[in-house]
Amino acid sequence: MYKTIQEEAYEANMQLPKLGLVLFTFGNVSAVDRDRAVFAIKPSGVAYDDLKPDDIVIVDYDARVVSGKMRPSSDTKTHALLYKTWADIGGITHTHSTYAVAWAQAGRDIPIFGTTHADHTHHDIPCAPVLTDEMIQGDYEHETGHQIIGCFREKGISHREVEMVLLQNHGPFVWGKDAAKSVYNAAVLEEVARMAHLTLQINADTAVLKDTLRRKHFERKHGENAYYGQGC
Amino acid sequence: MYKTIQEEAYEANMQLPKLGLVLFTFGNVSAVDRDRAVFAIKPSGVAYDDLKPDDIVIVDYDARVVSGKMRPSSDTKTHALLYKTWADIGGITHTHSTYAVAWAQAGRDIPIFGTTHADHTHHDIPCAPVLTDEMIQGDYEHETGHQIIGCFREKGISHREVEMVLLQNHGPFVWGKDAAKSVYNAAVLEEVARMAHLTLQINADTAVLKDTLRRKHFERKHGENAYYGQGC
Amino acid sequence: MYKTIQEEAYEANMQLPKLGLVLFTFGNVSAVDRDRAVFAIKPSGVAYDDLKPDDIVIVDYDARVVSGKMRPSSDTKTHALLYKTWADIGGITHTHSTYAVAWAQAGRDIPIFGTTHADHTHHDIPCAPVLTDEMIQGDYEHETGHQIIGCFREKGISHREVEMVLLQNHGPFVWGKDAAKSVYNAAVLEEVARMAHLTLQINADTAVLKDTLRRKHFERKHGENAYYGQGC
Amino acid sequence: MYKTIQEEAYEANMQLPKLGLVLFTFGNVSAVDRDRAVFAIKPSGVAYDDLKPDDIVIVDYDARVVSGKMRPSSDTKTHALLYKTWADIGGITHTHSTYAVAWAQAGRDIPIFGTTHADHTHHDIPCAPVLTDEMIQGDYEHETGHQIIGCFREKGISHREVEMVLLQNHGPFVWGKDAAKSVYNAAVLEEVARMAHLTLQINADTAVLKDTLRRKHFERKHGENAYYGQGC
Repeated sequence: MYKTIQEEAYEANMQLPKLGLVLFTFGNVSAVDRDRAVFAIKPSGVAYDDLKPDDIVIVDYDARVVSGKMRPSSDTKTHALLYKTWADIGGITHTHSTYAVAWAQAGRDIPIFGTTHADHTHHDIPCAPVLTDEMIQGDYEHETGHQIIGCFREKGISHREVEMVLLQNHGPFVWGKDAAKSVYNAAVLEEVARMAHLTLQINADTAVLKDTLRRKHFERKHGENAYYGQGC
Repeated sequence: MYKTIQEEAYEANMQLPKLGLVLFTFGNVSAVDRDRAVFAIKPSGVAYDDLKPDDIVIVDYDARVVSGKMRPSSDTKTHALLYKTWADIGGITHTHSTYAVAWAQAGRDIPIFGTTHADHTHHDIPCAPVLTDEMIQGDYEHETGHQIIGCFREKGISHREVEMVLLQNHGPFVWGKDAAKSVYNAAVLEEVARMAHLTLQINADTAVLKDTLRRKHFERKHGENAYYGQGC
Repeated sequence: MYKTIQEEAYEANMQLPKLGLVLFTFGNVSAVDRDRAVFAIKPSGVAYDDLKPDDIVIVDYDARVVSGKMRPSSDTKTHALLYKTWADIGGITHTHSTYAVAWAQAGRDIPIFGTTHADHTHHDIPCAPVLTDEMIQGDYEHETGHQIIGCFREKGISHREVEMVLLQNHGPFVWGKDAAKSVYNAAVLEEVARMAHLTLQINADTAVLKDTLRRKHFERKHGENAYYGQGC
Repeated sequence: MYKTIQEEAYEANMQLPKLGLVLFTFGNVSAVDRDRAVFAIKPSGVAYDDLKPDDIVIVDYDARVVSGKMRPSSDTKTHALLYKTWADIGGITHTHSTYAVAWAQAGRDIPIFGTTHADHTHHDIPCAPVLTDEMIQGDYEHETGHQIIGCFREKGISHREVEMVLLQNHGPFVWGKDAAKSVYNAAVLEEVARMAHLTLQINADTAVLKDTLRRKHFERKHGENAYYGQGC
């Protein structure tokens, strides 16, 4: 019954170590089934080498386990709220990838410095502020989801235009039309974070990409008249 | 009929992931057939793991598809103009390799700091300025070629002496006598970009290489009396 | 008789090159047998490719060889004193991993900047001061152990809360409930050291993690009501 | 007749790509036969993937080819002069490894910041000044050897105590009792160069290692009463 999203979540999770995005168990990917209103997520603290498709846990949008013998990721409530709020996303990835975490720890948005970035979004990548003490001492992982959603609302950014966020002092949360796309976006974010760091080291006064070029690169890949890729 | 350049372009494209120069599909290599006035280029947005020699598209110097079922790289018009203008180049590589992009995003020429650089060119590696809004909103990829060629003309550099350029806010374009050599040059550029970045971090006031040493290293590898390599 | 800890120490030592924590022979792991009051440690200067379980040397808490044909690691006396003093640790790892050594050479504690760090300890990672000339010219490796223990006592930190230390101008010593856990901690330390370095480069004025978040992350993984992992 | 040093040089050269010390053909190792007063060196510009033991060229201390069908490394005269002058060295390695080159391009000695460095030498690693125009325009590779030897003489350092040097604007030359040891030293130099760079980034005012600790670490590994390793 949940075979498809279990397999999808399993395959996507196994991409994280291959792409160099995780050390040990520091990451998790989920895949949603919109018809059944449940999602499949990595079990908590299981090493990637030991992970099997059957271990993937099925939970609903309130983070209640629907199927599975293992405890789901400790970040499950964050995934749940994002799925509940943003009805058109299909997969979510959370990692502690090195460069994205460094920007999150620095508490800074990642400025859009070039076309590698603009090929994926025409905004800076936002860094949502650290949670308040009340949020941390309350329902922490649920509030983490609220902080992400609140950051997008406040900045007036659509989660369709920017499929990634940093959470200050923590790390990246990334999404997409399915689990595989969210992992792809997580790898793009790590590379863009690394390039931006190096750019500032070479020229601390470098200007961000001008608007025409931001739109050109984003549109040629994602716009109505996109001509990147094979159009399928 | 186009088997040779298809194979050449295929083999050269497959070197990009092996040399660590691309993430996902962020790069493309082409190989020219001067007799037939066409070149072979990677199809747009195809993953390297899925790429087959038959997928390589054949286009002419005006970027019209001559043979192939797939859409060619979105950067095809840039390749086309470079082949049309510089009649003696045989292959072109475009990547978003990390350190080269960082210099491009910083908007700076890569200074010639040592003999690793001078073994390949005795000039700084130029960073062509970002395109004007008119160019971006016009025939963008064609204008990208014009910007590269214009930069060399303006600086009085020959494309034979410097086989690589950065395009500001974008990344590197690199060429050579054939596709394989352009990939080789792309890897050299990435390493030289990395070394120059580290050099400035260790000593921000370091001087560029003196002229005698620039010429010595370039000449011993590329001059009339070159004695590097096996002379074949 | 010592088969179990020999195997445990062997397996743990072989993880060091796999995790990229050692160049050549620059590291060693030991595993203790509390019943027999001995520990198993890597022989000195043996390449990981040549290492066999039988080569692992058995020594007592005064660093006297109890069993084995080879000379134990030159750092054996440091391991011995830590086992003797901290009766509840089961394994120790010493490496010269790049980023941890850089912080040790810089003579600075690693500030706690994020949750990756807080998942493992809610303190900065202390840098014990360089040994005095008397200590260096005396029983050097034994005094190294004293310096580590003295640093924790002076700062009022428990070795149960912080399972890792830098020794100024030298590098990291790391421990855990068994040898495998000490290697895990050594890899975590290296990653945390790398993230902290990058964080300071992006924002030199970044603040350390606030106390509520430090405790939240440490407690959800290690506290009485921990809910990270599978609870076994 | 030259089989032994050919094999030794071949094996040592093949270690360079495995240790990540070379891109393409940017490096060479030689091994000397003191009885026959000749050495074996990599042929110029041959890719490591194509290299065979038989390709290794035999030359004398005046850099004249004694045996072999290929042209020897373009750096052969530098190797020759070092063998001729320092009668007790058995192997030499030259690379363009990234961090060592960055220090050479920065024109700075690598300060001794920690025990990783002191385990191999108790001095800073010297950076010999760039050659004069006369030297460059004269017998360049021979003069490169003179510059290295002159730097050691001027600074009063023995080539036995410091088995490595940077040549300003160029890169490292490294030696040892045999070819394998010179490659080992080249890898140590690269790692020490990387650690020193990071150290300065974390604390630009960090002090060099104090003398007692320099001597302690060097002596425990190389002194009369050395107790590192298995004593063979």
